[in-house]
Amino acid sequence: MLNDLSFLKSVLPAAAIEAGATVLGESFHQFSPQGVSGVVVIAESHLFIHTWPECGYAAVDIFTCGNDVEPEKAARRIVRELKAKNHSMLEIQRGILDTEE
Amino acid sequence: MLNDLSFLKSVLPAAAIEAGATVLGESFHQFSPQGVSGVVVIAESHLFIHTWPECGYAAVDIFTCGNDVEPEKAARRIVRELKAKNHSMLEIQRGILDTEE
Repeated sequence: MLNDLSFLKSVLPAAAIEAGATVLGESFHQFSPQGVSGVVVIAESHLFIHTWPECGYAAVDIFTCGNDVEPEKAARRIVRELKAKNHSMLEIQRGILDTEE
Repeated sequence: MLNDLSFLKSVLPAAAIEAGATVLGESFHQFSPQGVSGVVVIAESHLFIHTWPECGYAAVDIFTCGNDVEPEKAARRIVRELKAKNHSMLEIQRGILDTEE
């Protein structure tokens, strides 16, 4: 599954849309002998996946800005689609967080 | 500078190469009225930049795998090229870190 380019090409944009993001473009790369890197550029930043099938491991970045996108929804969708036995999530706040000042 | 697509298109691959990475492709997007998102896909993962010229802010991800790339070099190059008055860096270790076991 982690080496299935067409599968991953469908999962990542679907996760972006589920999070409420606007997909602008995508770029995927199949590595030899194995592994996939893929990015979906969204109006609210990006989603990225890198897979290491030989380790049963995928790293996913979900980077969003604004308050209209729910990145957790994209994360949960990807965990579900990849049938991950284990996963860990780390949320990082970055940038100018308090725009009220 | 943060709204200069062609400038940013030159900075990001140059930073990747300075870090010792192999550039596979790139994709940039100019937002209206302002802002740029750009990715450089490298054999060792990716570099991403998102800019908010109206805030004088850029967010950069430098994601590498393996031991042959020096992501700090790319980070320092980008800070220098953007003439950043302030910057903060956060290094995150992820994945299966101890492959010796």
